[in-house]
Amino acid sequence: MKRVLFTPGPTQLPTEVLEAMARPIIHHRTDEYRTLFLETTRLLQEHLGTTQPVLTLSCSGSGAMEAAVSNLLSAGDEAIVVEGGKFGNRWHSICEAYGVASHKVSVEWGRVATVEEVESALSAHPKAKVLYLTHSETSTGALFPVHDIARAAKARGVATVIDAVTSYGVYDLRFDQSDLDGVVWGSQKGLMIPPGLGFVCFGPSAWALAEKARLPRFYFNLAKARAALEKGDTPFTPAITLVLATHAAATLMAKEGRTQVFARHQRNADATRRAATALGLRLFSEVPSNAVTAVTVPAGVDGGAVPKTMEQRYGVKIAGGQDHLKGKLFRLGHIGHYDEGDILRLVGAFESALLDHGYRLEPGIAVKAAQESFRRAGAGAPVRVA
Amino acid sequence: MKRVLFTPGPTQLPTEVLEAMARPIIHHRTDEYRTLFLETTRLLQEHLGTTQPVLTLSCSGSGAMEAAVSNLLSAGDEAIVVEGGKFGNRWHSICEAYGVASHKVSVEWGRVATVEEVESALSAHPKAKVLYLTHSETSTGALFPVHDIARAAKARGVATVIDAVTSYGVYDLRFDQSDLDGVVWGSQKGLMIPPGLGFVCFGPSAWALAEKARLPRFYFNLAKARAALEKGDTPFTPAITLVLATHAAATLMAKEGRTQVFARHQRNADATRRAATALGLRLFSEVPSNAVTAVTVPAGVDGGAVPKTMEQRYGVKIAGGQDHLKGKLFRLGHIGHYDEGDILRLVGAFESALLDHGYRLEPGIAVKAAQESFRRAGAGAPVRVA
Repeated sequence: MKRVLFTPGPTQLPTEVLEAMARPIIHHRTDEYRTLFLETTRLLQEHLGTTQPVLTLSCSGSGAMEAAVSNLLSAGDEAIVVEGGKFGNRWHSICEAYGVASHKVSVEWGRVATVEEVESALSAHPKAKVLYLTHSETSTGALFPVHDIARAAKARGVATVIDAVTSYGVYDLRFDQSDLDGVVWGSQKGLMIPPGLGFVCFGPSAWALAEKARLPRFYFNLAKARAALEKGDTPFTPAITLVLATHAAATLMAKEGRTQVFARHQRNADATRRAATALGLRLFSEVPSNAVTAVTVPAGVDGGAVPKTMEQRYGVKIAGGQDHLKGKLFRLGHIGHYDEGDILRLVGAFESALLDHGYRLEPGIAVKAAQESFRRAGAGAPVRVA
Repeated sequence: MKRVLFTPGPTQLPTEVLEAMARPIIHHRTDEYRTLFLETTRLLQEHLGTTQPVLTLSCSGSGAMEAAVSNLLSAGDEAIVVEGGKFGNRWHSICEAYGVASHKVSVEWGRVATVEEVESALSAHPKAKVLYLTHSETSTGALFPVHDIARAAKARGVATVIDAVTSYGVYDLRFDQSDLDGVVWGSQKGLMIPPGLGFVCFGPSAWALAEKARLPRFYFNLAKARAALEKGDTPFTPAITLVLATHAAATLMAKEGRTQVFARHQRNADATRRAATALGLRLFSEVPSNAVTAVTVPAGVDGGAVPKTMEQRYGVKIAGGQDHLKGKLFRLGHIGHYDEGDILRLVGAFESALLDHGYRLEPGIAVKAAQESFRRAGAGAPVRVA
């Protein structure tokens, strides 16, 4: 049975990515690999808007998050963690595991923290060296105002590191023009490849902190990764096929064009959100991210049964809520390799499954709203990923 | 141009593995994935000869090594590291990075440590809790007597953890019947898949140490990985395509049969070694491993040019020496998906390239030696991987 992923990671893989992984493997200590790895790194840098090294680690996004803690701090240091979801809280868990005192700015799941809330934490904890937060919170679909928060942190000499796991490839981060000091992300989201790679990019202030940081690190030693990258190498054997897949994906993104990639995500997110609200449903997050649309399960509807029907009858796999939101959310992913036709499939299946489960709606209303959204978004030109 | 890998990792990938990676990706929080992951784990356990959980980590073999340090010890603890090559020394570097005092038993590269040498270190450092060593040292092609060493360590209450990166799939480790307390390995060697996964298996004594160990760990927290495995999960998003590739490879190995896999490696290694000695060349390691044959570059031959010719003219990629052995070794890998025809290609290309570079030899002598070795090994039956 056909099943198309509309989960907020892993996301659909372009044919070019699948092909790259199906070719006979090459050795990583060769000029051929080094050239491809350096070219991949350059494409990732361009996309992030930076001349700083982008380090590729063989791990999940959480490994990259850990690297951004263990390479920046020492035992007994203080940090501030802004969290309003499962992944924001992960920063706190990492700090705790490493003996870093992490002061939480917690907001209700679905909400985003304001600059004022963060500023009051910055005043309360003047010893904090780094502020960690999530850009696009996958568990709630909320988009945190990372740039404003980073500006406030910088004003107090605190470095800001963001988890861009579901925002890389969705939002234009313009790293070098921003007040961000570090960005980490993973491979299975906007980058359109399978999970297994984590990425880290530090700005000059973060590298300065890294020199003094004394937390233990070996596999995630970023100074070593940076030194190796200069020769197109990695300190340890890289996940070769995933790096080659990244090359294929980053090439696709460059061909489509940075601006076009971000605009396509905006159109896809707009259409999905309009479809949801046309159905009379409530968006869970107050500031919804273009990566994933979290929709509150309406009263009287079985939050587990709808996704099951979407998958089994309509071949569309979405995600439900996590932790205490289990059964209470539908999470419709539109991050990565999705075009207009995909979104029509997604909202069509969503509408149909709701209908199947007794939710009263006017058939076609969600698809119509999505169509209108795409039409308004302009041009009528086909949206092409490559 | 065709290039076939005969490097000691990454190794050739079976078609079944390439196919598994080229299929549309599935989501990891599904029954389909969990079933495949649990089945994969069961196959890995069977191959290792254990009922203990085999933990799959998304990282290289070095990440798995780090996990075997950070999960077993606390800051200030002592360990013994046996090393006679690049990878043995990695245990020492990891211990140092974590503030563990690591006492080295160093032997010259190419040699293996004796039980007596290890016993004297065990007496000298009675506080040591864990002994770390490499089974098959990839940098020198030497095979360390891990079982005898583990027995000696156990007699003194010291746990033994081995790096089986290039011995898993080559040697029958019979973990539960051995005195070993921990084994770590990677994916790109005997397991015949690309790099990107590390594996750890602990016995009861190691798990008992893990309960008291206080080194910081988050991404590599093995207790969490063990708990998640019970439900077919991982604490973090797994490298899905590589896990599915592992399933394909482990299924191939199970079909071939454990004993047959080990016997095939023995035949391939014997034939390669006999070819090398028939050429009048010296094996570098005193106890050569069945994973890789390290051959000393003979006087008057350019140690860099021969591998280059093998690759460019004969489509056979081998490895050279590492670190101070650069230019001084040829390392011929025969770990994983290799059959009799592959080995004839390998030694044929080796002989031809040596001839091309002015080394005096009787044409055909290496291939003849390999053929005779295979014939003596018996049966004449075709060696089938699957």
